[in-house]
Formats: sequence, C-alpha cells, structure tokens
Amino acid sequence: MAELTEKVRAFARERDWEQFHTPKNLAMALAGEVGELLAELQWLTPEQSATVMTDPDLGPRVRAEIGDVTIYLVRLADVLGIDLVEAATDKLAEAGRRYTVEAARGSADKINTKI
Amino acid sequence: MAELTEKVRAFARERDWEQFHTPKNLAMALAGEVGELLAELQWLTPEQSATVMTDPDLGPRVRAEIGDVTIYLVRLADVLGIDLVEAATDKLAEAGRRYTVEAARGSADKINTKI
Amino acid sequence: MAELTEKVRAFARERDWEQFHTPKNLAMALAGEVGELLAELQWLTPEQSATVMTDPDLGPRVRAEIGDVTIYLVRLADVLGIDLVEAATDKLAEAGRRYTVEAARGSADKINTKI
Amino acid sequence: MAELTEKVRAFARERDWEQFHTPKNLAMALAGEVGELLAELQWLTPEQSATVMTDPDLGPRVRAEIGDVTIYLVRLADVLGIDLVEAATDKLAEAGRRYTVEAARGSADKINTKI
Repeated sequence: MAELTEKVRAFARERDWEQFHTPKNLAMALAGEVGELLAELQWLTPEQSATVMTDPDLGPRVRAEIGDVTIYLVRLADVLGIDLVEAATDKLAEAGRRYTVEAARGSADKINTKI
Repeated sequence: MAELTEKVRAFARERDWEQFHTPKNLAMALAGEVGELLAELQWLTPEQSATVMTDPDLGPRVRAEIGDVTIYLVRLADVLGIDLVEAATDKLAEAGRRYTVEAARGSADKINTKI
Repeated sequence: MAELTEKVRAFARERDWEQFHTPKNLAMALAGEVGELLAELQWLTPEQSATVMTDPDLGPRVRAEIGDVTIYLVRLADVLGIDLVEAATDKLAEAGRRYTVEAARGSADKINTKI
Repeated sequence: MAELTEKVRAFARERDWEQFHTPKNLAMALAGEVGELLAELQWLTPEQSATVMTDPDLGPRVRAEIGDVTIYLVRLADVLGIDLVEAATDKLAEAGRRYTVEAARGSADKINTKI
C-alpha cells in the first residue's frame, strides 16, 4: 500500500498534475470512478453480480474500475495525510461498538444502516 | 491491508450480514459513503479543501468518511476476489502507457480525462 | 417545473447562498444526495425496492431523497442555463437512434449500456 | 414533464426493458450518470465551471450528461409513483423552516449542510 501510494504520487508529479489534485477535485474523481463501477453492475441481479468475475467481459472491466477507484482513494488519502488502513480500522472499531454482535445478528433492520 | 480485509470479513460474518454483501449491494454502499465524503467538501473552495484536515470539526469527519469508503472498498474487493493493490498497480501501469510523461506535462487537456 | 426553478432560485438568493452555487459545487451536492438515495435502497433486493413506497418508514424517506436530488438538479440546470426537459428529450431521441426497438428487444446485452 | 415521463416510459416498454427498471437498478443508473457529470467538472476550478457552457466541447457534453441524469430521475420517480416537482417543493418548504432567511444569511456554517 505504501508502495502504491508512492507510485501514484510519482505519476502525478511527473505529469505536473499535482496542481489539479486538491481534495475537492480528487473526491469528485473518486465519485466519478465509483459511478463507472456502478454502471457495470446496475442491470445485474444481486445473484448475477456475485459471479461477475467469472464473466470474460465483465470480470476484467469490474477489476479495472476497482483499480481506478483505489488509485483515486489512495491519492486522496495521500494528499490529505490520512492513513487509509488506520482510518478504516478506527471506523470499524467504532462500528463494532455501535452494532454489537448480539444486537445485530439476524436483524434486517440494523443492516439498513451503515457499517 | 490483509489484516483489515480479514477484520471486515469477520465483522460481517459475526453479524450474519454476509447475506447482504453481494457486489451489487456493496457497490451501492460504497457509492453512498463517497456521497457523504462529497457532502463534507462540496461548499469548500479547492484551496479550503487543501487544508481541511487542520479544521477541528471537518478534519475528523473527512477522516471518518475516508475510513467508511475504505471499509466498503476492501469488503467489495474481498467478495469479488480482487487484490486491490494489484488492480490499482495494473491500472496505473496502463494509464502510464496512455498518458506518457512527455505528452501529459503541462497539458490541461490531457488531465481532463481520467488516470 | 418553471415555478420550482424560480422557488429554488429565490431560496438561494434570500439566504445569500448564490456565491456557493457554482456548477462544480452543485454537481457535488447532487451526487451527495444521490448517495443518500442509494443508502436507502442498498440492502434491499430489487423486488423489495419495487414496493419500497408502501413501507411506512422507507417510503417517505425515499420520497424526501428524490426531492433533494430534484432540488439540486433543478438548481444546477438553472445555473448552467439548461432546460432540463429539453436536454432529456434530446438525449432520449439520440438514444432511440442508437438503440432501435428492433435491436434492443429481448437483448440483455444491449441494456448493459446506458439509455 | 408529464410528457417526458410518458416518453421515457414508452422508451423502456418498447424495448422490453421494464424488467430491469426496478428502483434499485434505476438508482444505480442515476448515480452512474451523475458520476459522468462529475467527471466533466472534476478538474475545473469553480470559476471555470461557471462558464463551462460557453466551451464548445464541454458545454454540449455537460448538457448531455444533465439530460441523462434527468432521464433516469424521471424514470425512477415514475416507477416509484412519486411526483418529482411535488416531492421537491415539499422538501424545499421543509428546508425553509429549518434554515430561516434570518439565520442563514451570511452564514458560511449553515451552508455546510444540505438544502
């Protein structure tokens, strides 16, 4: 992950694109890529989406979109000075306190909130 | 990253939420979290967004949203069997072939396409 | 629609919020609201989503999110000087030429592209 | 607007695409189109975005994306049985009660919440 962060940083620096990489712009770019990912999955049933990686056309496209999303998320976190894994780990711990295993199990209501 | 993936997986399994975690549903959840991130940055100027982490209110909120986005991206990649870092590294290499350093430098046009 | 456009315009003007309503910012706000809409539907099956308006809790929430999305779309179009209905009608005509009824009927492939 | 709704409905019916047009799927398609709109604006400054319609390349592209977003929003509202203009008008009235003119004027804090 640290290596990827450095690669994306070098990619932007070499092309003189750092000037465009404000958090606001990068968040928009991240959302744009997530939009492309949604477009690949939008007409599939949930069941079809579960086997999408076995499709010779869709599989590589989904992987490529996941790659794009990751690039912009890594770049955004780098620009903000945030450690992605730490931020996620902290948030997961907080979610664990809010949705205890006991309360959540089998509860279709509880899942209608976010992690 | 591998550790985070395993933690998120355990989080879902313990709560019996795996049934909801299809790629389609998780992509929607990812997009929902990215929407919350955008909401934190939407009225800021690009310059204000560059220093958002120094704001005592906004900084932690942005970090929390980045954490949420990461959780769902990690979970989605896990369910799809995709290695996030590899997918991003491959995509970055492909982008490097499309936008060479020579062609891209100083080009405001080129940047108006995605990485 | 013209009346709604004028109401949203007056809403912004009265609060001195026009300064924040650039197309860039409004597009982010629109995306943020769409994210909230996705969050309401993300864990539902497609079948459950088809009857969401009969749910006493979810129905009004979905309607409210649709209202928010519409407000920002109307405001964005107003600021850009775009007539929403004309833009959509033109795009639909173009889509009709690309996806003819004959070619599209029963084709699960074709629908995996956008309107 | 009623005419557009009917046109989009006919478009889907003629192509036998109604089967794919669940609220869940349409919300994803809407988000995908909003993602394309964001992509057109992501590297522009807010000031550049304010004059985007005068750009001979970007202007028509932005208008086309606005058209796509509108098509899916109209279709989604139709499938849900929601009147878009009414839903937006109700929400705007509610927002007016929450953010009174007196409290909101000149307040950069207040705007950091949604309409």
